Amino acid sequence: MKFELVKSDGSARRGTLTLAHGVVETPTFMPVGTAATVKGLTPDEVRSAHSQILLANTYHLWLRPGLDLLVEAGGLHKFMQWNGPILTDSGGFQVFSLEARRKLDEDGVTFSSHIDGSRHRFTPENVLAFQEAIGVDIAMQLDVCVKLPATPKAIDESVRLSAEWARRSAAARRREETALFAIVQGGLDKAARERSAREIVALNLPGYAIGGLSVGETREEMYEFARFSAALLPENKPRYLMGVGTVRDIVMAVECGIDMFDCVYPTRCGRNGRAMTRDGEFAIRNAAYVRDFSPVDPKCDCYVCTTFTRAYLAHLFRAGEMLGPRLLSYHNVYLLNDLMRDARAAIEEGTWASFRNSVLQETPV
Amino acid sequence: MKFELVKSDGSARRGTLTLAHGVVETPTFMPVGTAATVKGLTPDEVRSAHSQILLANTYHLWLRPGLDLLVEAGGLHKFMQWNGPILTDSGGFQVFSLEARRKLDEDGVTFSSHIDGSRHRFTPENVLAFQEAIGVDIAMQLDVCVKLPATPKAIDESVRLSAEWARRSAAARRREETALFAIVQGGLDKAARERSAREIVALNLPGYAIGGLSVGETREEMYEFARFSAALLPENKPRYLMGVGTVRDIVMAVECGIDMFDCVYPTRCGRNGRAMTRDGEFAIRNAAYVRDFSPVDPKCDCYVCTTFTRAYLAHLFRAGEMLGPRLLSYHNVYLLNDLMRDARAAIEEGTWASFRNSVLQETPV
Repeated sequence: MKFELVKSDGSARRGTLTLAHGVVETPTFMPVGTAATVKGLTPDEVRSAHSQILLANTYHLWLRPGLDLLVEAGGLHKFMQWNGPILTDSGGFQVFSLEARRKLDEDGVTFSSHIDGSRHRFTPENVLAFQEAIGVDIAMQLDVCVKLPATPKAIDESVRLSAEWARRSAAARRREETALFAIVQGGLDKAARERSAREIVALNLPGYAIGGLSVGETREEMYEFARFSAALLPENKPRYLMGVGTVRDIVMAVECGIDMFDCVYPTRCGRNGRAMTRDGEFAIRNAAYVRDFSPVDPKCDCYVCTTFTRAYLAHLFRAGEMLGPRLLSYHNVYLLNDLMRDARAAIEEGTWASFRNSVLQETPV
Repeated sequence: MKFELVKSDGSARRGTLTLAHGVVETPTFMPVGTAATVKGLTPDEVRSAHSQILLANTYHLWLRPGLDLLVEAGGLHKFMQWNGPILTDSGGFQVFSLEARRKLDEDGVTFSSHIDGSRHRFTPENVLAFQEAIGVDIAMQLDVCVKLPATPKAIDESVRLSAEWARRSAAARRREETALFAIVQGGLDKAARERSAREIVALNLPGYAIGGLSVGETREEMYEFARFSAALLPENKPRYLMGVGTVRDIVMAVECGIDMFDCVYPTRCGRNGRAMTRDGEFAIRNAAYVRDFSPVDPKCDCYVCTTFTRAYLAHLFRAGEMLGPRLLSYHNVYLLNDLMRDARAAIEEGTWASFRNSVLQETPV
């Protein structure tokens, strides 16, 4: 893995990330393919929507289809026929969301599957080994997440154990083509964030993520802590803010000096009939769109917006037709990728501040 | 509309049907786009799966999105962005399936919507006017369907009223570009079928359909009555067998001298995880396919079969991922269109009998 910081404009960064399966221009949005599929879209469509890299979930893939099958298939890329870069999260976030179904100890975490109740165990080592074995470009360390608000003790423990697990992950690396990223934790506690960043930066890993945000805090808190955490990370390494995906949040995160984002937001919105546009979001099922023969987003040049009308999509959603969620998911992903392309151009041209302001003005969400 | 019978091989026919929106080579299979969408597929995919014409449902479109909206959208083709030929059925079959929710009289049929219970009325005239107004290439007459087994009295009444409604439909025609087809009824009663055919053939319409089959009779009865009914129809007009869609049934129907077919079968199977192949059908969720890295149908050259494995599709279905139904629907439609292309070639080359025998041998369904 190679990361080159091409240009900065204020705190906003324009970079180039070279991974085993291709080059990613940053800042970049990663659509989420939880279970080896970006919901409703073929890999060709994910590509034609201008996605450069996608995210898949270790927790889900571990349970189904499982390690053996993915290895037998020739790895995750071949299994799902996506030949671009893939980042997998470590499953930490999912496992800690299970709450009553998991038990943490110093060495790892034991949990029962949400699918069939079967018992499983994640350790920093076996989670990294899984990600390496399925051949992903970027592997995330197993970390310990806390729900906000959290007690100082819970935050300290999450910081201590996450850093320790980052060290163990680093020591367990076996595969050159898979770049390991560690994760800054620390909740809404600046001293804890500083401690967390200091410990994992010392490991000199290829990249760093900011975890424990977008989990219930206010937006202002999220921006504040994203900015604070980003500033603690080395300038010459990519920075990834986990779980961020509205137009406004992404623009604010770029402003905070972040390079990579992922979120189910555009595809989940797409399935639920929520259209994202450069001028804000709207619910396609709303009566206002039944006879609206304009495109979903008149400013968008994607297949959906250049082919179909809001009235047609409104009809598909009202009739419960599968094509509706599919088309709107495609458009939403395209829109975010388009936004990122424009953001990159603005940083290159030194016009980031005015681009940012105009997007924030037009997009309340 | 123009129909040219290019070649016959035994009873099997090879023809060319020229419609307002393009040319259809027959025999042809029409995928079903009930509510202005072939479920899960874009119009581009319907085309790339080699569909030449699709079927939509007057009953469903009447209720949702309704006449006004379709007219405002510029017609059904423009609304759904399918620029090839469209045939709409008359809604007769759907209305008569409602049973307790409909009331037949000499002039038409009154029914309540399955969506919201609202009252509606179909007459031969308003159903044809609807189909003409939304701009379809082929309109079906409103007919009176009977469930099998039926009493002789019910069959006679269905034949009498269907023929009378065919006359009224013919008299109500206003639009040159929409070709009206009438429908032979008569259940499993040859004298009634003869009477039905005689009355509607006298109207000298552009084409004729065989209705009231594939509704609960045995397969042998269906084939017998399809053959019998086809022979009653003029040789120089297209013949359409309604609601037929398995590989075996289509091949048998071509053998009976039929030119056109429609069925939800390939898309319904696709959504339910049932794969159609040249060597029969199988359930993709079956444990046998979890580690099967071969294509859905090794004899198929469609996008799905040349890109993904059975193991991947099995995973998508097990994980409840929308992409599974979508991909399998595409393959199934492609497979039937491919079968039709080979059937047309066999008739042209005078090798229909051996083609038919080989398909029937390999395909139990």
